[in-house]
Formats: sequence, structure tokens, C-alpha cells
Amino acid sequence: MLSPMDQNFVWPHRVRFVDTDASGRIHYTSMLRFFEAAEAEFFRSVGVRYSEIENEFTGYPRVYVDCNYTGAVVDDDLVSIAVTVDHVGKSSFTLGFAATVRGAAVAHGKIVIVCMDKATQRSQPLPEAFAALLRRL
Amino acid sequence: MLSPMDQNFVWPHRVRFVDTDASGRIHYTSMLRFFEAAEAEFFRSVGVRYSEIENEFTGYPRVYVDCNYTGAVVDDDLVSIAVTVDHVGKSSFTLGFAATVRGAAVAHGKIVIVCMDKATQRSQPLPEAFAALLRRL
Amino acid sequence: MLSPMDQNFVWPHRVRFVDTDASGRIHYTSMLRFFEAAEAEFFRSVGVRYSEIENEFTGYPRVYVDCNYTGAVVDDDLVSIAVTVDHVGKSSFTLGFAATVRGAAVAHGKIVIVCMDKATQRSQPLPEAFAALLRRL
Amino acid sequence: MLSPMDQNFVWPHRVRFVDTDASGRIHYTSMLRFFEAAEAEFFRSVGVRYSEIENEFTGYPRVYVDCNYTGAVVDDDLVSIAVTVDHVGKSSFTLGFAATVRGAAVAHGKIVIVCMDKATQRSQPLPEAFAALLRRL
Repeated sequence: MLSPMDQNFVWPHRVRFVDTDASGRIHYTSMLRFFEAAEAEFFRSVGVRYSEIENEFTGYPRVYVDCNYTGAVVDDDLVSIAVTVDHVGKSSFTLGFAATVRGAAVAHGKIVIVCMDKATQRSQPLPEAFAALLRRL
Repeated sequence: MLSPMDQNFVWPHRVRFVDTDASGRIHYTSMLRFFEAAEAEFFRSVGVRYSEIENEFTGYPRVYVDCNYTGAVVDDDLVSIAVTVDHVGKSSFTLGFAATVRGAAVAHGKIVIVCMDKATQRSQPLPEAFAALLRRL
Repeated sequence: MLSPMDQNFVWPHRVRFVDTDASGRIHYTSMLRFFEAAEAEFFRSVGVRYSEIENEFTGYPRVYVDCNYTGAVVDDDLVSIAVTVDHVGKSSFTLGFAATVRGAAVAHGKIVIVCMDKATQRSQPLPEAFAALLRRL
Repeated sequence: MLSPMDQNFVWPHRVRFVDTDASGRIHYTSMLRFFEAAEAEFFRSVGVRYSEIENEFTGYPRVYVDCNYTGAVVDDDLVSIAVTVDHVGKSSFTLGFAATVRGAAVAHGKIVIVCMDKATQRSQPLPEAFAALLRRL
């Protein structure tokens, strides 16, 4: 979905009871799972699936994550997650995430994903077509 | 660990905050993760590791689980999980689990695990040495 | 959503990478999370929210779950989950779940939920309006 | 446990199958659950339990997390997690985490935890005794 305001990709995610903890709010790791769902749908929206760019030689592990939690999120909330490509490097890229509930910011963070040679466990250049797509986004 | 009372294998598992939900108790799926940890340690105690009996041809998926929840479990509780081999069939086996907190029963259940040919996705006989071990336990 | 075939409530759930495990398929507990999401949407479809029937005196813990796993489910699969009310007792009720992927059955199970007095931790009769609704479904 | 090298608190955490994903390694959020377990044990080692410092007025939500992933972690690995108090502010504190497997660094990160007035959802000064303890650690 493109939100009219900023033309960013935004994915809605319903909070489930399993996402909560005894504080009555969501566990802080739940937001990262919501980001993962939004990331998959973001790539689906541009025709990319990890299952297609990964193979027996190449993987895309996450090497860094951060997240700021700025508002309470509770069971059954509908969280809207905007996804942006914040940086495209030679062998890695950074995705940005910003989450809102009923228009109020609740979390924002980023993830760095690296293109890895599975045999050597070392980074390798992003496939050119994929890198070009990321730069356009 | 062998408990003195019943000579069953018993594994202690500390409840973590992430295991809880907004009810203030653990989410009901958390108990099944505790069972999984107890199962791995049960097999370790007799010298078996799934990573050694699984390979590119053979997997051990779970085909059935049930669990009865009989008492409240909260954050930081130490749950003791007894593991038993309840049945050994031709191509599957059943593990039983009984969980207590401070001596009081909180859950019991079972899991049926099948030996599967990964190529055909069909069951196949348990390796004889593994089946013999299971029958002794 | 009512499926045209059987008029059951059916909820679609997209499998996420976090739902998988090193077998390459989903972890068996993931299906129970999908059931939970389907249950919440099933109740939403008839105007019930747990947050409205629960309060400081009354909770609805699960006391039993079982699940049969009959087919492989992998990352990004769209799982369709049918929800039915299988039994309504005096103080508890049973929900049935049947999951399919591309029309093929992959899992079915049930959950027993009890109406509990939080002070005594004992079962109490279901609220009559809720019980009546469940019997109609 | 105090490790002899650096006198830091170190908590060992066994990786479970549920912590893995279809990459064959652990899901990146699993490491954050391991950090949470290490944090609880770190505080237990100095006689603090969140259940004692939290109450109906005061909570300790996480407001920031980051984590760098520097090595592969797989099922059944024993992860050693060192915990340090990196900063103590007026109303928040920062914990640092460094994880190793068989002596090799696999992840390091930090978490910022704030003392919150539950009624206003705003930060409030850390209890003096708790802040003093944190500064000594």
C-alpha cells in the first residue's frame, strides 16, 4: 500500500495475544517480527522474494538491527509499518522502519542486511539487478 | 537429572519474560517450547542428538501434540519437566511430558514424532538402533 | 470470510520467516499461533473481543490444546484456517481449527477454553449471552 | 558466574530448535531473547528482581535496543553472554551484552531501560537504591 502522504510503502500488522507480555504491552522483540513481515511484503510489492535471490551459495543474513520504542502497543492494535531503503552499499543495504498506531509513532528502527557467500561466510557484492532495484526504491 | 522419586528424567526450565503474555501468565505455547528443551536434554542424557540421526534423507517431524494446562505459571518460575518414552511404533514414537512448579502439576502432554523419508515425505521405519534405545528408556 | 463451500469462517495467515525452523518448514508451535490469530478474527467477525469479556475478575485461559500435522508448511505460504465451535459446555467451550495450503490439509486441532474466576483460579459458568452466541455459531 | 578473564557476569544459554529459522541458523530475534535471559540472571546474581522493583505505579520498559551479529549460531550451540552496566542516567540505564560461542564473538548489543510512571507513561527518576547498585556494578 502506498500511503497518500509520503508515498512510502506501509504494511498493516495486527497485534496478537502471543505478541504481548506480562507488562500488558507487546514484548519488545515483537516489533521486530512486525518489521520482518513488513519487509517481506515490501519486497513482494516490487516483485522480489528472498526465496528467489537466496540459493545454496548466497544468503542474506541480518548483521545489525536497532529499534527505538516510543509508544505503548497492546493486544489487537493495528500497527502500520512504513518501510524505506535507507542505504545501498556494495555488499549490504539498510532498511528503515517506522511504526504507528492510530497515527501516533510507536517505534522506528533499521536493519542492515548483507549479501553473504555461504561457503566462505564472507560478504560479497549484491547482485547488480537487485542493487539497482534497491537504489530506485 | 534423575529425580529420586520416579527415576524419570527431569529438566528444569526457567520461565522468561518473553514467555509470558498480557494475562500475566505464560502463553500456552511457551510450555511446548519448554517441552522441546526438555526433549533435547533428555536425548542428550542418553547420548542421542537429532543433528546426528537427521540427515539429507531422513527427518523427524512432529505429527501430533497435545497438552493439558492444569496450573498457572508466571515469569521467573522454575518449571521441572519430566520426560518419558510412552510408545515406540514401527515408524514413530511418543514422548510424554509432565511439568511441575514447586511440586504442583501445571501441565502434561505428549508429542508423536515420525521418522520421515524427506524425498517422498512419507514415514519410514525408525533406525533399528534408535528404536532399540527408545524401547529401553 | 465465509468460504462458499462450507460456510465456515476461514482466516488467511501468511507464514513469516520467523515461523520457520532449521528443518526448512515451520516450527510446530507456529501453527498454534496461526490458530490464535484465526480465533481472534473469528470472534471479531461476530462482534466479540476477549478484551471485552475479560476483566479483573474473569479470565479465559486455555486448558487443553491438540494438533495433528498432516502436511509441510514453508516460508511465505498462505495458510487458510477454518474455525468452528465444536462444543459449548457449562463453563468451557471447544474451538476446532483446520488449516489448508493451496487446498491441501496441513493441520487440524482444537483448543478448550475455560471461563475462570481469577480470585479462586476455578472455573465458573460462561456468561449466558456469550454461551448463547457460541451455541449459535 | 564470573568469568576469570574479565570478572564480567556471563550467562550460558543453550540454543533450542525453536530459536532457529530456515536459514539453518538462529533467527536474529532469538539472540535478543538470550540477552533477556542473561539480564534476568545478571540481576538475580546481585539480588534484584524486576518483579520486586516493578509495581502498579512503576514499570521498566525498554526504549532502545541494538545488536550486531558477527558470527553464525546454530541449534544446540551453547552461547555465553556477558552482561555489563554501560551507563546509568537519571531515569534510565544501559546494559551491554556480548555473546560468544566456543570463544568466538557472535553478537554484541545494548538495551536502554527507562523507569516509567505507569499513570503518565513518562520517565521518572530511578529509585536511588537501584541507581546506586547499578553504578557499583
